[in-house]
Amino acid sequence: MTAKKNLIDDLINAFTCLPGVGKKTAQRMTYYLLQRAKNDAINLSDVLREVVLNTINCRSCRNLSQEELCELCSDPVRSDDMICVVESPADVFNIENSTNYNGKYFVLLGKLSPLDGIGPKEIGIDLLDSKMASGNIKELILAVNNTVESDVTAHVISELAINNSIKVTRLAQGVPVGGELEYLDQHTLSRAFDKRTLY
Amino acid sequence: MTAKKNLIDDLINAFTCLPGVGKKTAQRMTYYLLQRAKNDAINLSDVLREVVLNTINCRSCRNLSQEELCELCSDPVRSDDMICVVESPADVFNIENSTNYNGKYFVLLGKLSPLDGIGPKEIGIDLLDSKMASGNIKELILAVNNTVESDVTAHVISELAINNSIKVTRLAQGVPVGGELEYLDQHTLSRAFDKRTLY
Repeated sequence: MTAKKNLIDDLINAFTCLPGVGKKTAQRMTYYLLQRAKNDAINLSDVLREVVLNTINCRSCRNLSQEELCELCSDPVRSDDMICVVESPADVFNIENSTNYNGKYFVLLGKLSPLDGIGPKEIGIDLLDSKMASGNIKELILAVNNTVESDVTAHVISELAINNSIKVTRLAQGVPVGGELEYLDQHTLSRAFDKRTLY
Repeated sequence: MTAKKNLIDDLINAFTCLPGVGKKTAQRMTYYLLQRAKNDAINLSDVLREVVLNTINCRSCRNLSQEELCELCSDPVRSDDMICVVESPADVFNIENSTNYNGKYFVLLGKLSPLDGIGPKEIGIDLLDSKMASGNIKELILAVNNTVESDVTAHVISELAINNSIKVTRLAQGVPVGGELEYLDQHTLSRAFDKRTLY
């Protein structure tokens, strides 16, 4: 029971919708903003509402977008003959920030998970298949997570691509940059050993 | 450079106003909300705006409040003869949740820090002094942080209280509940040893 039970508690609860934010962190955020950063808080409120209300999924690649067709899909400079398949919009963001890839993307917005009712349609594989059938695509890059669950999704998509005579590649697997072998897990070390490359 | 540079980047930046949230966490929050929790995001936006616009400081105890006089100050059941002095509204929240204290509070909203231009007036010591001069207060509990900076603040307030013939107490110092001596820092262990109590 505190003085401001109603409103302040509402805000603490609202903050717990954020990933990685529990009651204690939400409380810290709430009191911090109210005591020291009211302007920032109002700005956050405004931007949050604006972004949520104005963001849709691109009809071509399913990435988050403000337009029907996202900036990447409508960019004439980006080549049309490569598609990089990722699981989430955050992956597009990271690849754009880390590489000089200049092709198109396709965002699955998830991965196959029949037990959760997520089949090929839910992750847009029909849309991806019709893109591949168009005949323009030369390479499909599988940039999905390197986990058992994502491997199934990667396998299904790779078969479709092969049926369409499209070259399929996936991200290299191995020792991360800066990684020390001593601290590497067995699976990664074994995979890196198997896939060793010419020096 | 991503598809949604403008709006989504704005939201990522806006999230970094939260304590403990850097670029990477802000990015995770943004994509999480946009992909999976748009309703929660709108709710957060609404509650945030409402709380910030409707929260002021109580004119009597300086705690965060929706009214001129906060719920704790206007509660007739709480005794008027004890004041618990804390540094921030979050401390009031924690004490209310952890103890059965039933007196009033006074929130300093900071601590003395002459180099940062924070003197007695900024932390409301004049207001606290006039409360003490009223003659109703029997005990003043110093529940400020147990740090060197806060010790100065505690000392200044304790002198005022003593001038007003008010009993001053402060929170017990010692081994935290569940604490293991092996992992306790030197200062705490030494303090707990000095202040040992009868078993």
